[in-house]
Amino acid sequence: MTRSETGNWEWICVARLVGTLLEVRCMADFTLLRELTTTADTKIVLLVMDGLGGVPKEPGGPTELESAHTPNLDRLAVESMLGLSIPIGHGITPGSGPGHLALFGYDPVKFLIGRGVLEALGIGFEVAPDDVAARGNFCTVDDNLLITDRRAGRIPTEKCAELVNKLRTIRVPQVEIFVEPVQDYRFVLVFRGKNLSPRLNETDPQRTGHQALEVKAQAEDAHKTAEMANRWIAAAREILKGEQRANMVTLRGWAKEPGLPKFTDIYRLKAQALAVYPMYKGLASLVGMDVLQGLRSLGDQLRALKANWEDYDFFFVHYKYTDSRGEDGNFEAKAAEIEKVDAAIPRLLDLKPDVLIVTGDHSTPAVWKAHSWHPVPTLLYAPRLGRRNEVKGFGETQCQAGVLGQFPAVDLMPLALAYAGRITKFGA
Amino acid sequence: MTRSETGNWEWICVARLVGTLLEVRCMADFTLLRELTTTADTKIVLLVMDGLGGVPKEPGGPTELESAHTPNLDRLAVESMLGLSIPIGHGITPGSGPGHLALFGYDPVKFLIGRGVLEALGIGFEVAPDDVAARGNFCTVDDNLLITDRRAGRIPTEKCAELVNKLRTIRVPQVEIFVEPVQDYRFVLVFRGKNLSPRLNETDPQRTGHQALEVKAQAEDAHKTAEMANRWIAAAREILKGEQRANMVTLRGWAKEPGLPKFTDIYRLKAQALAVYPMYKGLASLVGMDVLQGLRSLGDQLRALKANWEDYDFFFVHYKYTDSRGEDGNFEAKAAEIEKVDAAIPRLLDLKPDVLIVTGDHSTPAVWKAHSWHPVPTLLYAPRLGRRNEVKGFGETQCQAGVLGQFPAVDLMPLALAYAGRITKFGA
Repeated sequence: MTRSETGNWEWICVARLVGTLLEVRCMADFTLLRELTTTADTKIVLLVMDGLGGVPKEPGGPTELESAHTPNLDRLAVESMLGLSIPIGHGITPGSGPGHLALFGYDPVKFLIGRGVLEALGIGFEVAPDDVAARGNFCTVDDNLLITDRRAGRIPTEKCAELVNKLRTIRVPQVEIFVEPVQDYRFVLVFRGKNLSPRLNETDPQRTGHQALEVKAQAEDAHKTAEMANRWIAAAREILKGEQRANMVTLRGWAKEPGLPKFTDIYRLKAQALAVYPMYKGLASLVGMDVLQGLRSLGDQLRALKANWEDYDFFFVHYKYTDSRGEDGNFEAKAAEIEKVDAAIPRLLDLKPDVLIVTGDHSTPAVWKAHSWHPVPTLLYAPRLGRRNEVKGFGETQCQAGVLGQFPAVDLMPLALAYAGRITKFGA
Repeated sequence: MTRSETGNWEWICVARLVGTLLEVRCMADFTLLRELTTTADTKIVLLVMDGLGGVPKEPGGPTELESAHTPNLDRLAVESMLGLSIPIGHGITPGSGPGHLALFGYDPVKFLIGRGVLEALGIGFEVAPDDVAARGNFCTVDDNLLITDRRAGRIPTEKCAELVNKLRTIRVPQVEIFVEPVQDYRFVLVFRGKNLSPRLNETDPQRTGHQALEVKAQAEDAHKTAEMANRWIAAAREILKGEQRANMVTLRGWAKEPGLPKFTDIYRLKAQALAVYPMYKGLASLVGMDVLQGLRSLGDQLRALKANWEDYDFFFVHYKYTDSRGEDGNFEAKAAEIEKVDAAIPRLLDLKPDVLIVTGDHSTPAVWKAHSWHPVPTLLYAPRLGRRNEVKGFGETQCQAGVLGQFPAVDLMPLALAYAGRITKFGA
């Protein structure tokens, strides 16, 4: 088991041990908002450019956002409040799940979404409250069942789908089973039934030369699920044993739907998610947003926004490709994606939102080719009540000088609600 | 009991009542970092100018740092990220212990180092895990043992050492005893043995006209230690009774080695401390740094840094005299000390650190002649991934406009680790 895996377990165990404590604190957090939020005839739009934040390619030069030609965002910035949001903490790089939870107002260190559930959300699988989901890997074992390749030679996705089809034939008593291909050697396994528990160990030994581990219960209530999992693995082994490369599986990241408090309840917001990628639709559904299916482009999203404008209080619009190009390490392509979003701004403003937020869930600097910890440029446009910055455009440097300063990303929702006239006074 | 004493006791009682709670939360904090930190072939240098922060001598004028001629730091500032760190909280003035714990990433309100242990560290006494240490004061009592001077007329340090030598003859069964002179009327008493407890009251009544208090156990497990302490005090009284001034002792700040989590464990950093003064070497050893002994000057420290560069990931370099001159109230002398450190910067940069931090553990404004609560100028140089400030030099005013903004000092270590490529992503 690698250090990171051990750490993961320790973290989860500690999180469980202090569960009561944390729940009390979280409840307390939202209890204040539950008490103070009120309804109003106002509209909020949260436009997320995934991985928006960046760093200069050359020392002293502009970031991706600063080098992009964004006349609409620049004009809007002058009339808006700018700041830099910190998704989790100084120096901490968020994954997509924690990054979005923070934007939605949920402390991502308190509200954990297990990897199995995230993986299921990522392919658009709807996880029910009683489900237990795991991420599966195909792997290669030798005659003694010792793992020789933990990723089965990175088989192509088509092969993955073909094998998953075979695994769908496995039946285990008292449980409904779903197997879904993800990408390459990865798949999702979901058990649906009564009294299932995700408190199971991971079967990947995290190194070659060892057998896959047996599934064991990590809590009293998990014995039944462990037995089901072992039965399923044994059957999968039988089905796969003739395969050259993908002749065994490992399972990890056992998780249940996290049961997050919902937008309607804590914010009194009827919210709609307008996203293209399954992961973000899934995350939005976890916090109680209605998810509009079938959107394939920013154009679709803008049309849907206009069409549904009267039916919702809050819209989450997600744009993925800024992050993708950052991950590619393509500085100019990321700037070009930002320009595409910039071109959509006038159509957004035509709807006259009371609050429009333009931000990211984290930074993805092209020079780093990955998510990073850098604070995220944030623009909050609230024509009625805003204080103004002395800025000329939208960029990291301008945001640093903005009236919002640096602030925790979880504070963005209270700010949005306040500027939309949706939070009443605390205390007399 | 004075108000300040009452407050102290209340605080200690509350701290004890919520002991378990705090431990759990702290564990959780570091559990996140334990999970996320990874190793990398990168070097971090933390250069601490003690008490660096200051305030202007004349309204609107420069601070000590701003008035100092610091061409090297100014040049570095342009290529770095600046900010102001808050050691504990707005308005809270840190002692040396809390100030450094915060820089090392340990919440100084959660991780308390008792005064007895701090005093022992300050004279270079190595406190073992089973030791109980107290700070002792010589005092003057009359024939009825009523205290007439709580500081024994501030006897000179030589006299203190002479009396400590006599007190070293005291034997108490089942415990090894160390007595060490500190300064003037102050000494350190250390009990070493099995099952000792520091949960004892202070014997100083905090005002004259009263007898020194008896030592009483504040917890079930402290009765044995209380009895030992009372025996030792009775023997000390016998030895001292012929003295004119220092004819009695009081004891306070009973404490054990705090058992802090270690740098190697929580950050995966092999760290070396390059400090001249015992207190800072002691603090560094509490967090698991290797301490290089025998350094007497900044020159020694720089030579050691170069000599040990390949053997460590992290170096803590401590410079004391900025604080000393601030405490003296000598504005120009403090600026001159900053200039001496500035002259050393090129030799530091020659080593090509991946991250170089220049900061202080707290402010010591010369006009205040003492530690203060003012946020501390901080420079973080990370050539690969930094966002840039629009600044022209290193000073409090420039730091206020820096990209790091104002931030809690405990966040400096996560930032350093992130910029050194030593923190992996949180969540998927």
